[in-house]
Formats: sequence, structure tokens, C-alpha cells
Amino acid sequence: MFSGKARAYTNIALIKYWGKENQDLIIPMNNSLSLTLDAFYTETCVTFSEDITEDLFYLDHQLQDSKATLKVSRFLDLVRSKADCSLHAVVKSQNFVPTAAGLASSASGLAALAGAASAALNLTLSPEELSRLARRGSGSACRSIYGGFAEWQKGDSDETSYATSIPSDGFENDLSMVFVVVNDAQKDISSRDGMQRTVETSAFYNGWLQTISQDLAKAKKAIANKDFTALGEVTEASALKMHGTTLAATPPFTYWSAESMKAMNLVRHFRESGLPCYFTMDAGPNVKILVERKNEAALLNALKDQFNAQQIVVAHAGPKIEILTEEEA
Amino acid sequence: MFSGKARAYTNIALIKYWGKENQDLIIPMNNSLSLTLDAFYTETCVTFSEDITEDLFYLDHQLQDSKATLKVSRFLDLVRSKADCSLHAVVKSQNFVPTAAGLASSASGLAALAGAASAALNLTLSPEELSRLARRGSGSACRSIYGGFAEWQKGDSDETSYATSIPSDGFENDLSMVFVVVNDAQKDISSRDGMQRTVETSAFYNGWLQTISQDLAKAKKAIANKDFTALGEVTEASALKMHGTTLAATPPFTYWSAESMKAMNLVRHFRESGLPCYFTMDAGPNVKILVERKNEAALLNALKDQFNAQQIVVAHAGPKIEILTEEEA
Repeated sequence: MFSGKARAYTNIALIKYWGKENQDLIIPMNNSLSLTLDAFYTETCVTFSEDITEDLFYLDHQLQDSKATLKVSRFLDLVRSKADCSLHAVVKSQNFVPTAAGLASSASGLAALAGAASAALNLTLSPEELSRLARRGSGSACRSIYGGFAEWQKGDSDETSYATSIPSDGFENDLSMVFVVVNDAQKDISSRDGMQRTVETSAFYNGWLQTISQDLAKAKKAIANKDFTALGEVTEASALKMHGTTLAATPPFTYWSAESMKAMNLVRHFRESGLPCYFTMDAGPNVKILVERKNEAALLNALKDQFNAQQIVVAHAGPKIEILTEEEA
Repeated sequence: MFSGKARAYTNIALIKYWGKENQDLIIPMNNSLSLTLDAFYTETCVTFSEDITEDLFYLDHQLQDSKATLKVSRFLDLVRSKADCSLHAVVKSQNFVPTAAGLASSASGLAALAGAASAALNLTLSPEELSRLARRGSGSACRSIYGGFAEWQKGDSDETSYATSIPSDGFENDLSMVFVVVNDAQKDISSRDGMQRTVETSAFYNGWLQTISQDLAKAKKAIANKDFTALGEVTEASALKMHGTTLAATPPFTYWSAESMKAMNLVRHFRESGLPCYFTMDAGPNVKILVERKNEAALLNALKDQFNAQQIVVAHAGPKIEILTEEEA
């Protein structure tokens, strides 16, 4: 029996990942930049054993069906091949989310799986190697290896595509991210399918790619200077561009609902009223608001009149992935 | 005294006009295609007279201030120069709109002014010449010279930029356009300023221009084939692309409000439920829904549960500009 456990935190991209250059290896079309958060994490325990004849996957104490298990098995195959191991495994995973609002993330899930499985088989991986491994499970998972700010270097091969930590002198601890959980969700198109349709059909996709390097440079300069306004502006601009690309896809689509629009326009209104804050959105209708920690209370107070308490979740910068000992798990 | 009167109807672009190549002459970056509507129109009377020493402009029986009058005067200067006339004029204009919801249109207003002023001075203008003249007042006005479908040929000079009628065998009479007047409007950026910022700064603007010719071809083929689905699809796609370009401007902006998003997502929902309809939007939060006339009642019934009666305005295809005699005015 070989066991490993890990806890990994989700991350939200400030400069968005949107489109794959290589579907199988999950090599992205562009670099992205993220903030790891404390409020959403996954704990996973992986035990390889001679006593079982197939991989078993429990999520939140429920044994999962063959489709979900197959995804985990394929990822474990990568780890097994690195360790020259042919044992099956029991994977027990638990998502810790502040509400039942569907905020669980594949980034924290696949990062935790990568950490736990590689620990179980005593693979000694550097953060970059662990990031590369996690990337194969879910692209954005490669950023959840690090706390604070991380940049996913797109690279051009399995070897060269991984995230690195961005030095920040603790700037991330000055920030809060407030989630507005939107209730009127439209029928979803998955992140995977949405970005693929965009890459293949959107008349705006080249325009998107052309602005990435300048947006990344702005974001990194803002982090280095602890310049909240500059970071917020480029964060919001990157999100709007990402979502703009979907409007020129064939057929066009959007992740925005009326409540998303309400939240985005409120953020603009708050800002004009003297409360500095900026939004970002991912492949779904929820809106995430970046605000300085010193203004978090004012933002929450302003949101209170517009959304109910169950819709609001506060997060702060989270730590890097943690490999847990038996006692901690 | 030289008097002329005209009535002109507004038009809504199905393939959008978005950006000027020449600001002064109002030569657009791309061709556009529109449907003239019956529900919104302007009646204008222009009287050139030796008895007055400055131009006077009455809108809806109110004498307008110098700023609004200056715009009219500059347009009249074009007409005066064509007719070798140096008289000042009294302009009386009235907007006929179904509600007080701010649906008055510069397209109908400037087309009516062009028609009335040129009639007053006995200029004998062909439709194309009148279209060119109206264009100088407001770009989209050049399409309101025609009933039904019109295409604004962008051209590359004052001489070559004007609209023409699109043969349709009466297809426009099978259509309705239902306006959803949105109440939660954001602070506006004008159409003029919005398109200019987009041309100058949007990373998506080239992508927009690159799809125009194929969208126009699709729309004209759909009109020729009386193919409502094809016309609706390209109409909605053109609107989404136009609005997508603003999201990549610097700074980004949007004309969408929460209510706009609600209406757009409802249209998608209606369509998935078997009611064929498609939306378009212009430089403001209102949503316009294109539907076959045979399904107009079903659409109105479906909208009834979501919007109040004052928010809904029904329009059908409208006629070409009418030069009125004394008795008709």
C-alpha cells in the first residue's frame, strides 16, 4: 500500500487562459496569470494497492460513475508511468466550498490529485514538475501548485508548459476577491467546449491573442509596483476580452446572464462612486470582484442591498499546494 | 418663401454600421443593411425665407438651443450650396414615436430634413442623391430614403457612399420587429463616440471588418430566398459582433444592461422552445426582436410575462421617404 495526501487551493485567472494549442497535452494558446485563493480547496487521498483490480474514485464520500472515474484513471496512468507502477488506486477527494452553489473547481481538484498521487508513489517532483503534471489533468490546475500569484508559461511542449510563482512581496495579502454567485444561470457550454469553439471559429480570436503579451506585462508591472488600480484595470479588460471573443464565434454564445450583467454594471457604478473595485468572470455566470482588503467591508456593504447573503462569498490569497502527512489528513 | 415637407421612417440595421472611415463626410468603414420600420417616423417642414436672419429649429413644437440648431444649420448649408441659396430657414420637425421611451431616431430625423430642405429649394434629387445628402446629416439616415430593405454602400468618397434598395419581392411584409424598451439604462456613450473609440482602440475591430462581406452576402441571400432563419441568424450574429468589439476597446465599454441581457437570453430561450425569433441591439440598451409576422402574437404573449406593456413596441416594415404636399403635412 502506497498512500499520499494533498490539499490544493483553487485559483482565479486575472489574465485569462482561453484556448488550447494542443488538446491532448493541454498546451494553451497564451500565457495566463492567476491568484490562488483560500476559500475553495480540495483534499485528496490516493492509495495504490495490490488488493484492488480497478481504480475507485470517491468524491465527497460518493463513489463516482465510470465516466468520472475514467478521467481520474487516465491521469493516474501518467503518474504510474512516471513511477513504473501498475497498481490500481482508491482516490478519495473532498471539495471544501463555502456554499453549495457549485463553486467547486477542477483547478484545485486536479492539483490535489497530482500532489497526492505523486506523493503516494514517492515521486520527488519540483514545483515546476508538479505543475506540468497537474496541467495534464486540467490546464488551470498547473497554477494551483503555487500560492499567491502564478503565471502559466504556455511553452510549446509537454516539457515547457508549466506555471511559475510571481514574486510579489506579499501584495496578494492586500487583496480580497468577492464572489457574486449568480442564480439565473443559462444552460452552460463547458469551458473546454467554449474555448475550443472560440479558437476554431471566432473572428476575434486573433485580436485576443495579440493583446496577451501587453496585458501580461501590465499585470506583472502592477504586481511589482503593488498598483491595485493598474492590476484591476487589466484584470477587468482581460475578462471582457475573453468574453467578447465568444460573441464572434459561430454560432455565438455567452456565459453572461442578466444577474452577471447587473453585477458587472454595479462594479462600474461603485468605482465611479469612489469605491475602487474590478470584476472578472470565467466560463460561467458568476462574477468575481477584486478589491483591496481595506475596502472589502465597504464593498460587502454596497453589495448587501443588491444580492442576498447566500450569493456572496469572500476569499483572500491562498497558500501553495500542501502535501499532508497521515495526521493532517 | 420656399417650403418643403417630408416624412421619413426610421430604420434598424440588421448588418450593423460601426465605425467611420471619414468623420467629416461620414463615410463608413463597412457596408450595412437595414429594414425601414413603420412605427417611428419624423415629419419635417423647412421654409426658406428672406424675413429671417438666422435659422430656427423647432422640434416637437419647442424652439431648440443654439447647439441643436447649429447641427441643423450646417446640414442646411449643404443644401443651400447645392441650390445656390443664401436664405435662412425655419425648420419644424416632429417625431412620431409610440411611447415616450426615447426611441426617437436621428435616422428618420435627418432623412426627413434632407427630403424637406431639398424639396423646398426644388432640387431634383434621385433616391441615391437624396441618400448621399441625408448621409451627411447622420450616417444611418441614408438608409431611410428607402422602404423595406436597404444597403448602405460604403463607397470611398462623398460621391460613392449612399444606400440602395434591396429587391425583396415583399419579404419585409412577412416580418415584425418587436422593441423591448429597457428601463435600467446605463450612462450612455453616444453611438458616435462609441464607434470612434472602437475603431481607434479595439483589438477586435479588424476581426469585425473581416466578417462583414460574408455576413452581407448571407443576409442578401436570405432576403432573396425569403429565408427567415438565415436572416435571423446573421442579424443576431452581426449585433453580437458589433457589441463584442466594444469589450476590447481601451477603456472597454458596453451598451448592455441587466435587462438587455435578460431580453437577449429570453430570445434564445424562446427559440429553443420552438418560437423562431432573433434579436438585434444598437448603441443603447434596448433590444429589438425580429420575428415572422405569423408568430408576432406568440412572441408578444411570451414577452407579456417578463416585461410590462409599456416596454413593448411593435413595428412592421415601413415605406420609403415621402415628400408631402401642403395638404398632407
